[in-house]
Amino acid sequence: SVNPDLASERQTASFSVEKLTALLDGGTEQTRIRRAVVEVIESDPVFSRENQYFQTQNERYEAAVRKAVHLQKKMHEMGWTENGPEFKYIYRALSGDVAFLLHRVFMRSISVLGSDKQISKWIPLATQHKLIGSYAQTELGHGTYLQGLETTAVFDTATQEFILNTPKISAMKWWPGDMGRSATHTVVFAQLYIHGKCYGIHPFIVQIRSLQDHSLCPGITAGDIGPKMNFEHIDNGYLLLKNVRIPRENMLSKFCEVQPDGTYVRQGSQKINYFTMTTVRISLISDEVLTPLMKACTIAIRYSVVRRQSKLKPGEQEAKILDYQTQQEKLLPQLAAAYAFHFINDYLQELFNRGYTEIQRKNFDMLPELHALSSGFKAVITQHCTAGVEICLRACGGHGYSLLSGLPSLYTKILASCIYEGENTILLLQTARFLIKCFMAASAGQPVPPSVTYLAAVKHGRCPAKNKLDFLSPDIYTEAYQHVAVRLTSSTAAKLQDLIQSGVKKHDAWNQCTVQLVQAAKAHCHYIAVKNFAETVEKLETKAGIQKIMKHLCDLFALHGIFSNTGAFLHDGYTSAAQMDMVTASYLDLLAVIRKDAVPLVDAFDFTDKSLNSALGSYDGQVYQRLYEWAQKSPTNQMSPAYERYLKPLLHNTLSKL
Amino acid sequence: SVNPDLASERQTASFSVEKLTALLDGGTEQTRIRRAVVEVIESDPVFSRENQYFQTQNERYEAAVRKAVHLQKKMHEMGWTENGPEFKYIYRALSGDVAFLLHRVFMRSISVLGSDKQISKWIPLATQHKLIGSYAQTELGHGTYLQGLETTAVFDTATQEFILNTPKISAMKWWPGDMGRSATHTVVFAQLYIHGKCYGIHPFIVQIRSLQDHSLCPGITAGDIGPKMNFEHIDNGYLLLKNVRIPRENMLSKFCEVQPDGTYVRQGSQKINYFTMTTVRISLISDEVLTPLMKACTIAIRYSVVRRQSKLKPGEQEAKILDYQTQQEKLLPQLAAAYAFHFINDYLQELFNRGYTEIQRKNFDMLPELHALSSGFKAVITQHCTAGVEICLRACGGHGYSLLSGLPSLYTKILASCIYEGENTILLLQTARFLIKCFMAASAGQPVPPSVTYLAAVKHGRCPAKNKLDFLSPDIYTEAYQHVAVRLTSSTAAKLQDLIQSGVKKHDAWNQCTVQLVQAAKAHCHYIAVKNFAETVEKLETKAGIQKIMKHLCDLFALHGIFSNTGAFLHDGYTSAAQMDMVTASYLDLLAVIRKDAVPLVDAFDFTDKSLNSALGSYDGQVYQRLYEWAQKSPTNQMSPAYERYLKPLLHNTLSKL
Repeated sequence: SVNPDLASERQTASFSVEKLTALLDGGTEQTRIRRAVVEVIESDPVFSRENQYFQTQNERYEAAVRKAVHLQKKMHEMGWTENGPEFKYIYRALSGDVAFLLHRVFMRSISVLGSDKQISKWIPLATQHKLIGSYAQTELGHGTYLQGLETTAVFDTATQEFILNTPKISAMKWWPGDMGRSATHTVVFAQLYIHGKCYGIHPFIVQIRSLQDHSLCPGITAGDIGPKMNFEHIDNGYLLLKNVRIPRENMLSKFCEVQPDGTYVRQGSQKINYFTMTTVRISLISDEVLTPLMKACTIAIRYSVVRRQSKLKPGEQEAKILDYQTQQEKLLPQLAAAYAFHFINDYLQELFNRGYTEIQRKNFDMLPELHALSSGFKAVITQHCTAGVEICLRACGGHGYSLLSGLPSLYTKILASCIYEGENTILLLQTARFLIKCFMAASAGQPVPPSVTYLAAVKHGRCPAKNKLDFLSPDIYTEAYQHVAVRLTSSTAAKLQDLIQSGVKKHDAWNQCTVQLVQAAKAHCHYIAVKNFAETVEKLETKAGIQKIMKHLCDLFALHGIFSNTGAFLHDGYTSAAQMDMVTASYLDLLAVIRKDAVPLVDAFDFTDKSLNSALGSYDGQVYQRLYEWAQKSPTNQMSPAYERYLKPLLHNTLSKL
Repeated sequence: SVNPDLASERQTASFSVEKLTALLDGGTEQTRIRRAVVEVIESDPVFSRENQYFQTQNERYEAAVRKAVHLQKKMHEMGWTENGPEFKYIYRALSGDVAFLLHRVFMRSISVLGSDKQISKWIPLATQHKLIGSYAQTELGHGTYLQGLETTAVFDTATQEFILNTPKISAMKWWPGDMGRSATHTVVFAQLYIHGKCYGIHPFIVQIRSLQDHSLCPGITAGDIGPKMNFEHIDNGYLLLKNVRIPRENMLSKFCEVQPDGTYVRQGSQKINYFTMTTVRISLISDEVLTPLMKACTIAIRYSVVRRQSKLKPGEQEAKILDYQTQQEKLLPQLAAAYAFHFINDYLQELFNRGYTEIQRKNFDMLPELHALSSGFKAVITQHCTAGVEICLRACGGHGYSLLSGLPSLYTKILASCIYEGENTILLLQTARFLIKCFMAASAGQPVPPSVTYLAAVKHGRCPAKNKLDFLSPDIYTEAYQHVAVRLTSSTAAKLQDLIQSGVKKHDAWNQCTVQLVQAAKAHCHYIAVKNFAETVEKLETKAGIQKIMKHLCDLFALHGIFSNTGAFLHDGYTSAAQMDMVTASYLDLLAVIRKDAVPLVDAFDFTDKSLNSALGSYDGQVYQRLYEWAQKSPTNQMSPAYERYLKPLLHNTLSKL
């Protein structure tokens, strides 16, 4: 039975939840396939996540391996393939709680970086799980700066082998997933040396464990790097190599080859490789970043209509906490952001598909723009969504702090997305570099890529809004965002030039502008996200109330961004103080409007109770019952030896010497 | 041997680290006592925290009980008493990783709320540990709003007993520390009923477990609430009461008594009780909030001069990451905030001591101000420091994400401080209510408490700064902060009045202003923190470079606040855009200045390696070595059954049906 406080929220939905779900999925057929996959996965007890909040890191690892192995059987049984329409829903239905994810990266890197001969040798072995692969790039002392990697691969002409070494402790491979305990093979990135000359970083296939008994191969030291904030199920590992010899054929050689006599031959373009990196950044947004935020919103919003605390009106019963303006102001902007980023993700996917087509035609023109967008949006979305999940957690008070709410693990996991696949600050500076370059080009009248043409059109006007309703016009706020993005880019470009002209060396000048460059990059992405949301809403079907509610969310997303960052809009007087008060008024009005549809808006994400794995967020809203029942199963309710050992002697005054 | 990259940072300190440590401790004698306590605690293996990142919740609980019991012996041995000068350093030296903290709250509540007779009965029992106490206030469905508690205590005249019940699942006591597994007694807060009439919330001493064998008493259901984001060592518990009878004498009756015939007598003032709550909020700031931020700064800053990544200048070696402006902008403001809040904590402690003296003279005039300041600063400091710890964690990249860095556990623990002892938003609204009231009084020419007299002096001037150096003048920035605090309070008061005058009901009008009221309360606290820091610096001794470096930190704290919140200062034109550019320039200049002393500034916090418990933050900076050695000890490097069960059958192709 559904908690009546939650049930009543669903009766007044202004739109069709089912239609919105289909919109998010990309069509009713996609919804159907997704639900079918979820049904199969969730009805299989091997895939259950019910006990995960009680498990140790060792237990989580073992469960993840069990699930990965079971998944192979399941896919075979169901006729699912890696290229089938179900595949993208499988990982999501498992909430990522499965081993051998790096095995897939191992395979992809061979496919992309290997010669045809290497592909035909290794891919079948990997596909049939005759080996378990990993991907060893990051070192203890080196992450962001690939050229700095210290692992070496020296070519020995005599034996036709490479000799691999991690010469210092900082050169040790550190972090690779699946490597601490599972992998038998890995792709090692190392500095290639031939006849004493360094040719830079290259990838090598190295066997690290015996296929017979899993013992470490000669020269290999490897293990698990220990406890982390999350990812307990993954055996992130370390790897030391001491004079490990591998045959010449194990250097992945699609782009570079070492011939038997030591001649180094570079062939083909490595640009596609560069493109792979950007694709990974985009591909993680959906499952690793948006899904957690959507889950957090679902949990926090459902809880906020069930939880009653204090009185809004004297004499009445305690109020649902979502009726407090401060609670709305915490949660509803996160909900709007989840939708905004869902749509920008669609936009980026589409752009990347076009980019990929062009690249296959050997046209690499789109690459710089794609790199800038993928870097910037990876950083902005992971940062925004991580903060959003934390806000949801805190907004649930003490119960949010219990692991059983599901929120702590969502937070500790999404947090990592700010760091992996490119640290966010580094990525934003990549975007900024592109912006500065394009701004200079545009100023000089040269053509620039589509997403930055707006930089050329520097307008010195003022915001034309006359009352608070004007700020519900996408043209008004989109232009304000554009203005800020142009101002921040142009002013930082000016500062950079001033510094250089005043004699500061180029790299120092750049460093002295980086705080502001990061701001410019964020403003650029924020502008594009707002613009894209507004354009998406414009194109939506008007029936079933979908367009209307999406328009509200778009307005909220845009106005929340202005309200939270008023200085950027006030700075040069583009927006006046009086206009900022209008923004505030419209923004606060919108909270009350969207609050009415808050539950239907999270219901549309269509998470099952099992996928939320939360005592606060279940569809029926029976929060207290669930917390109580679940807590009773905790291992902390088993008998503790602490009583006999310490408490009893203390209470009975039999502790020696006391 | 100290890592040379870290050692070199210490050679150029502009001030005496030892003198600064003494300033932070409150004198050289305090430093001596503190170090003596730390030495004793850290040389005792029972108090070791070395394995804590590897332990399960059950193991953590058992260790905390062991430490608590051992501490009793240790104190006896050392001649330390709860009233001695060492006591405040003991908890800090243990990093709070010890059981029976609620036993102290149990004792304090009896001392404050109990009659003399009750005190003389229970306090000796508690002191001698003939019972273990807890404190049961919060319920599953009720936290913030005490009047809403549902547990009942019905007086039975016939037997001279109270009958206690938790009538619904939402009435179950939930969260009390030490109650899940350890406590034998607890103070239960319940609605008192006499002859069918409710007299509101009162405290009752209830025995929950047998003193003989620790079994649950009749009518009691209790246990542990399960896993949380941190506090694994504490057995936060639940408690159900079913017709539990306790003698009339067990109601704590300093202020209210039920006589044998059921007559309810209220005696004395409960205002002191209200004062206790505010004292707790202040007392937690130092150990639970400032210490974690100081530790996080120590870890992140030491790591940032040891970690080298990418090149700042072409051709040179990779740069220390603290030399990047973006890294400075992440860490140095947190360092400045740690100092700012240390000094505001001194200010609050001093104010509360004065308040306490007044209250003992039955003068309660200072109470509203003390309540407003304690609420506001509890919220502002916990929020700011929590965000600061998270920034430190992220600033260490992947290694910050390892539990071995110490940063994740600092974060997950400090986060709770935003929730317990008053949820932050609720507290800020309490402060705001005080501000609005005082603003109205001041506007009407009535006297107001000292900390808010500034609200009366609304000035409509403009910031007089003419160049970036002017913003290093405390008068200039303090006045800017004051201006913003007045503006936000006055404009929200005006909005509130407008709404009420336009016919909106008072409580609705209040709710519609709460987002802005929270802003006003924060601005008020921020202003006082800046003013207090500036005044403190003014009074410092000028020798040994202490005043100079503290002045830099004060400037940074102030300018960072403006830089991060430019809209508030630009809004009404008090600060112009040109002046804001000066703020930015001065702020960024300061980063480079303070960066030079960053390591000495964290060294002055004087944390031992054991208290940091971090592979990244140790005094010698041997980061990589320590990570590697520590990781090897992880239980995840023991043999896993996953190989024989799953990996071997997979690799050997002997999985059935595959």
